[in-house]
Amino acid sequence: MNLQVKISKSRVEAFSDGVIAILITVMVFDLKVTSLAGGIVVTELNGLLPRLAWYTVSFLMLAIMWVNHHQLFQQIKHADGCLLWLNVHLLFWMSLIPVATNMIGAYTTDWIATTAYSLIFFMCVVAFALLRMHVLRNSVLRSAAYHGHRLVLKKNGLAMALYAISACIGPVSIYVSYCILLIVPAMYFIPERIHHQTTAEK
Amino acid sequence: MNLQVKISKSRVEAFSDGVIAILITVMVFDLKVTSLAGGIVVTELNGLLPRLAWYTVSFLMLAIMWVNHHQLFQQIKHADGCLLWLNVHLLFWMSLIPVATNMIGAYTTDWIATTAYSLIFFMCVVAFALLRMHVLRNSVLRSAAYHGHRLVLKKNGLAMALYAISACIGPVSIYVSYCILLIVPAMYFIPERIHHQTTAEK
Amino acid sequence: MNLQVKISKSRVEAFSDGVIAILITVMVFDLKVTSLAGGIVVTELNGLLPRLAWYTVSFLMLAIMWVNHHQLFQQIKHADGCLLWLNVHLLFWMSLIPVATNMIGAYTTDWIATTAYSLIFFMCVVAFALLRMHVLRNSVLRSAAYHGHRLVLKKNGLAMALYAISACIGPVSIYVSYCILLIVPAMYFIPERIHHQTTAEK
Amino acid sequence: MNLQVKISKSRVEAFSDGVIAILITVMVFDLKVTSLAGGIVVTELNGLLPRLAWYTVSFLMLAIMWVNHHQLFQQIKHADGCLLWLNVHLLFWMSLIPVATNMIGAYTTDWIATTAYSLIFFMCVVAFALLRMHVLRNSVLRSAAYHGHRLVLKKNGLAMALYAISACIGPVSIYVSYCILLIVPAMYFIPERIHHQTTAEK
Repeated sequence: MNLQVKISKSRVEAFSDGVIAILITVMVFDLKVTSLAGGIVVTELNGLLPRLAWYTVSFLMLAIMWVNHHQLFQQIKHADGCLLWLNVHLLFWMSLIPVATNMIGAYTTDWIATTAYSLIFFMCVVAFALLRMHVLRNSVLRSAAYHGHRLVLKKNGLAMALYAISACIGPVSIYVSYCILLIVPAMYFIPERIHHQTTAEK
Repeated sequence: MNLQVKISKSRVEAFSDGVIAILITVMVFDLKVTSLAGGIVVTELNGLLPRLAWYTVSFLMLAIMWVNHHQLFQQIKHADGCLLWLNVHLLFWMSLIPVATNMIGAYTTDWIATTAYSLIFFMCVVAFALLRMHVLRNSVLRSAAYHGHRLVLKKNGLAMALYAISACIGPVSIYVSYCILLIVPAMYFIPERIHHQTTAEK
Repeated sequence: MNLQVKISKSRVEAFSDGVIAILITVMVFDLKVTSLAGGIVVTELNGLLPRLAWYTVSFLMLAIMWVNHHQLFQQIKHADGCLLWLNVHLLFWMSLIPVATNMIGAYTTDWIATTAYSLIFFMCVVAFALLRMHVLRNSVLRSAAYHGHRLVLKKNGLAMALYAISACIGPVSIYVSYCILLIVPAMYFIPERIHHQTTAEK
Repeated sequence: MNLQVKISKSRVEAFSDGVIAILITVMVFDLKVTSLAGGIVVTELNGLLPRLAWYTVSFLMLAIMWVNHHQLFQQIKHADGCLLWLNVHLLFWMSLIPVATNMIGAYTTDWIATTAYSLIFFMCVVAFALLRMHVLRNSVLRSAAYHGHRLVLKKNGLAMALYAISACIGPVSIYVSYCILLIVPAMYFIPERIHHQTTAEK
């Protein structure tokens, strides 16, 4: 007798969607003016602008992750227990993105914030790669998609390496870290557009 | 071999719905009494009322955007990559509405807050127009709806112009800005009701 | 040529569900310890307990509203524009429940908070009654359900009267107001259970 | 004439999913740096780490509850009124988990916080057991699953006992409480993986 009913793939997707939708919007809370007595809006805007910049980067990364999450799940035939927990593991690291965004927005010139931000994104990519590797190992996806996933895993490896470098280089120069943190979304975003346009041309 | 699986239209809609539902409710967080020692509720209400007024305006605008978003997506046959990213772009600007609402509620008499509020709504209308223009250009919608979309685009142009004027006129007179900011929801809301009633009469 | 595509009933339901799910959980944010230097948890709990009590009342009321909202929508055959905006109107007043809960939790002994709390619930019941009356007037529901809706409208009228009394009696005695505020959830909750059991017995 | 329309099982599931997705992400709000003037990020990280640790425990418990909630609902044939209210009751106690997590993160060395944390999880398990017992009593589930549910109820009883011990032992030694609070997620998590692997082997 087995109580363990299979969790349907669509439920895991819907729950992940909900969590990502909340994460992408809760970051906006930090973009707040405090309205202190005697305060003027211009001085508050100075503190707001770095937060706004990092909010934009995190927003873009979460949007990219949401697109990739869906594309991965659309190719999965059925969910198993291990996939479920690997997905929870991914959501845990993604849920720390608002924390890291808040920290880097508040301490723009402190390397600890930059390193923490890099490390959390590093762990997100690791969690994504683990999820994808489980899917490849257990062959729960359509065989034709196999090669494509290996390419994405290589890209994940590159992103991991970049985030690791960004985390290590933080204490030396936060500006180099910043550049690396901006390369990764560009890396994921640009080819995706090309891909889409190719699809459209067909 | 193409890894790029088409994102289903319904997923994009569900994700957008989630984000808009969160945005429309998170603004309510600013409407908070701080319960300072020795404070009395009457003095706090004074600070709360302008926030409440702007919350109402933003709530109405987000509700109008949600209705328009759905009407646009209901006419789309299938989603492509460009549509996906234009939608993320729209959600980004919409996610800044709570920030602008918080700022204008805290600094009601400061023209910078009024201008920021106008600019964010201006960008929302721009993002909406870009999305609609992409839909028209790629003819992914039913041909019968084409003329109607051109009319909505003209209305969008008018809203854009109004928000731009509101942003520019802020430094001169915030009260003129306020009036303009109230005209736009009225402009979208009133004809919609007439439209609906016409539909009901048929 | 009519651009106005009918909003599907299920979308309005799903959006309302999302908003109510967020509202019911965001209230929990106020139940926070501030962790001041030198503070001890016992003194903070004293401030937390009235907030917790009012959170419970608001949670119960929102749960009851969610159940009633669904029951109403399940009997509607199709949504029209007026229904859509009456639903947005209802969600607006419901979105102010966390504000009122925060205020009454912070100022338990101030009649203004009690009156504000009563007034917002009064407006929620009014919005519900307007929605239900629109449904009855436009006969978009199954005829057999007509009589039942009239009974619910009478109950709504009673709830409105109670909340109006509670709002007016606040300046005189907040404890009488408190009692009335507890009667309404009991009024909605108790008969519902009997109803359900009757359904189960059949 | 009965107004009481049956609430569909899928609606209750979707609403619960929404609430749990919000709860699991709102806890992240407490993991915030305050960015005080003159503050440095290292000192803030010291205050952040215990919060992060307890966030992880609560995140895991909520994820386990989400999985169990789904497995229970997948075996239910139809929802009745009592199930609906028992589910609202469960969600109420779950909604207090962020409050307890905030309190234990702020006052790591205060036994009152540990006891409050234990008690709220105790009530969550009680609410879960009540829900499951109602399901068993009213035989709304497939008969083959009956034995499995009795086993889960025994496990629930053990978890209840552990949380009760943790709550009582708090004033004596919070470290023993901490160990017990970590045993419960392990207890639920480990067998689940074995279960899943068994399912996969078949």
